[in-house]
Amino acid sequence: MLLPIIVGLIYHEDHVITSFGIPFAALMVVSCLITIRRPKNNSVFSMEGFVSVAASWIAMSAVGAVPFVLSGEIPNYADALFETVSGFTTTGATILSDVEAMSRSCLFWRAFTHWLGGMGVLMFVLAIMSSKDVRTMHMMRAECAGPNVGRLVSKSKFSARILYGIYISLTVSEGILLMLGGMPLYDAVIHACSSAGTGGFSIWGDSIAHYNSVYIEMVVAVFIILFGVNFNLYYYLIIKKFSMAFKNEEVRTYFSIIIAATAIITFNVLKLYNGFGDALRHSFFMVASTITSAGFSTTDTAQWPMFSQTLLLLLMFVGSCAGSTGGGMKVARIMIIIKTGIKELRYIVSPRAVATVKMDGKPVEKDVVRGASNYLILFIMLMCISLLLITLDDFSIEESASAVITCMNNIGFGVGRFGPAGSLGGLSSFSKIVLCFDMLLGRLEIYPLILLFAPRKMR
Amino acid sequence: MLLPIIVGLIYHEDHVITSFGIPFAALMVVSCLITIRRPKNNSVFSMEGFVSVAASWIAMSAVGAVPFVLSGEIPNYADALFETVSGFTTTGATILSDVEAMSRSCLFWRAFTHWLGGMGVLMFVLAIMSSKDVRTMHMMRAECAGPNVGRLVSKSKFSARILYGIYISLTVSEGILLMLGGMPLYDAVIHACSSAGTGGFSIWGDSIAHYNSVYIEMVVAVFIILFGVNFNLYYYLIIKKFSMAFKNEEVRTYFSIIIAATAIITFNVLKLYNGFGDALRHSFFMVASTITSAGFSTTDTAQWPMFSQTLLLLLMFVGSCAGSTGGGMKVARIMIIIKTGIKELRYIVSPRAVATVKMDGKPVEKDVVRGASNYLILFIMLMCISLLLITLDDFSIEESASAVITCMNNIGFGVGRFGPAGSLGGLSSFSKIVLCFDMLLGRLEIYPLILLFAPRKMR
Repeated sequence: MLLPIIVGLIYHEDHVITSFGIPFAALMVVSCLITIRRPKNNSVFSMEGFVSVAASWIAMSAVGAVPFVLSGEIPNYADALFETVSGFTTTGATILSDVEAMSRSCLFWRAFTHWLGGMGVLMFVLAIMSSKDVRTMHMMRAECAGPNVGRLVSKSKFSARILYGIYISLTVSEGILLMLGGMPLYDAVIHACSSAGTGGFSIWGDSIAHYNSVYIEMVVAVFIILFGVNFNLYYYLIIKKFSMAFKNEEVRTYFSIIIAATAIITFNVLKLYNGFGDALRHSFFMVASTITSAGFSTTDTAQWPMFSQTLLLLLMFVGSCAGSTGGGMKVARIMIIIKTGIKELRYIVSPRAVATVKMDGKPVEKDVVRGASNYLILFIMLMCISLLLITLDDFSIEESASAVITCMNNIGFGVGRFGPAGSLGGLSSFSKIVLCFDMLLGRLEIYPLILLFAPRKMR
Repeated sequence: MLLPIIVGLIYHEDHVITSFGIPFAALMVVSCLITIRRPKNNSVFSMEGFVSVAASWIAMSAVGAVPFVLSGEIPNYADALFETVSGFTTTGATILSDVEAMSRSCLFWRAFTHWLGGMGVLMFVLAIMSSKDVRTMHMMRAECAGPNVGRLVSKSKFSARILYGIYISLTVSEGILLMLGGMPLYDAVIHACSSAGTGGFSIWGDSIAHYNSVYIEMVVAVFIILFGVNFNLYYYLIIKKFSMAFKNEEVRTYFSIIIAATAIITFNVLKLYNGFGDALRHSFFMVASTITSAGFSTTDTAQWPMFSQTLLLLLMFVGSCAGSTGGGMKVARIMIIIKTGIKELRYIVSPRAVATVKMDGKPVEKDVVRGASNYLILFIMLMCISLLLITLDDFSIEESASAVITCMNNIGFGVGRFGPAGSLGGLSSFSKIVLCFDMLLGRLEIYPLILLFAPRKMR
């Protein structure tokens, strides 16, 4: 919270002293108090990893919402909480009808929650923590996205540092490239943070389209795609294990999907734009923005043919690579699920034939295969429950479903009144809280949050 | 096809001589020709069972559509095919904008396809077949609905006869009860056939609401619920194994869902109707009609609060019991899937604890558990592909999705222009063919149809 205070002081926004200063001071006092009594046993097991990650995310969202309320810019606490959860989970959905009316320090804080949430807040703590390596892998695993996250190096502290090193380098590179395209420093910082977390918060009502610059759009599109790649790949590139990097089946599929979807949509929307180049530009940007769950927009997709809109909707579920900052179900998980479906067909024909699901040429562990299928099942179950709760507000099924889908996949915009041009402000506070849970479920991949609230017996 | 000819002669509809007579004569000639050369090896294995069931259903739909075209009442063959597939698969979706304009023989044929398709056409053949029991279990299993269909008695021929005996008794009972409520004989036959197959074709534009009789509505609602129960249960009742019948977990859950959903919806729609009784009446009927996938309607659910509409939508997916004439994913499969999801949560906490999925107090075989999850996965995959193809017609995502969902779950009505009051006539022929496949996929539970079109290598 020191950073938004600095931003506020630069732009002479005096409210930061109270709005960010009070929660900052309170946090300092509380954290000093709770560190007085240190537990003797520092080990973190699987269960503790899950529960502490879930509890931390809820706590930091609850506190992160306070500045918005104190500054008076989002007076309702439920709204402020929604905005903060949307930030940390890199969803990018907003309840604001007019973003441009907000102060620069609050806008910075919004974008900065994206940046922190993208790679993981606890991983950030891990990277700067000086203590011994106390089985923190469980926490890292609980916060990281994807079915099978491995550590890069044996100590998770160093893994976290390497990942954050890559993350910062990419963010800074994007910021510099945006400034070269004529973007002011402040705007460049905001949009670099926002796209690093594949979040989607902008400082303009019309998002990236505000700059009306093909160069800026392409920089953002390319970088959100890069932030949607498994960060292990960059590590392999750094240590010059190029073969390891390029034979990765998930990343290859991820890029194939982007190219194929862009090509299909370009031809489908051709007649809506002035020529091929214009259609390609918007198709590429929207595909990148949707599959990575960034949720930036350059064009009103509600005007597109239904086929393209449906394709985008399916891409939302696919999401980006495991171990990236993107949302969705993750490409690796979808691949495992589709391969499992095909395997089932073979099994039906000849039950004696042993078929295994393979990734990168190696058989996938049975636990991972089962986990991927069951993840989908839990995802759908929770989606149905949320949908039922949201429909109590009596918005159309289509709109309610789109709100739930975009929140659980951490996208940021739905259809109808919740589309890119609208906001979720019209929902009841109850629905907003439900959607907050959905966003956290999506970002933390279900298990941590459910286990936090599960009956003690089950743990 | 002899029955509609008889109906036509009774009502002096002379076109039946050509419209039903020609395909009848052609079928006689062809079936004599193909029985000349008998195969030496009569055994039917798993693969042959699946493929022959799929091929038979396509063939009988193709031929069943001919009378509609010849009579000139549905001149377009794609439309006639859609109507016939919708009949045999007991979907009940229609492309007709005015059912009441059709002749009585054609309306009878439409309802009769429901009755035949409900229990299974091949099972009918099996029941009247005089030949030896040549491993026909595989065919029975491919045509029957649900994750785990067992035979009642050791010979599948006798199983088929028992099931058809129960089926005919229930249908006749319903017909008599409907006539006692003042329905003419013809109407009673049509609606008894239609509800026996949980299909939904009526002879009136406003379906069961036409009679405006609480008695008739309740008879239909109770009978479609009974037709949605696993038929094995009736067999146990007949042979007086009452404990076997009542401890069935699936059937108990099925009734619990109906009671709970009716109660919730009654309170949700209370203020739309004149008092509690009226609300209960419509809620009960629509819940019964939706969960069994019958698709009859007594009220315009588009006026209901979104919460109730969403609940109905979810009930469509749940469907009725395995081994019944109803559609959907089947209660047993949903139960296994939900139990698998809960088991996965336990597993995440303590990977060493051995948790098994139980039904009726006994552990479910691993193959059945895996099969249920993978069925859901394949179901969703095929739904996404169909949705993409249907959206080429540029109807809204909501309407397109509802068409695909109701066809794959064999319900019969969707939302918007495809709602209870509308028809699917506005779709392109291509979309109608896609939906025909979806209906067959739903009725035959995916595998037979996919295996028929699978590359030879995979078989």
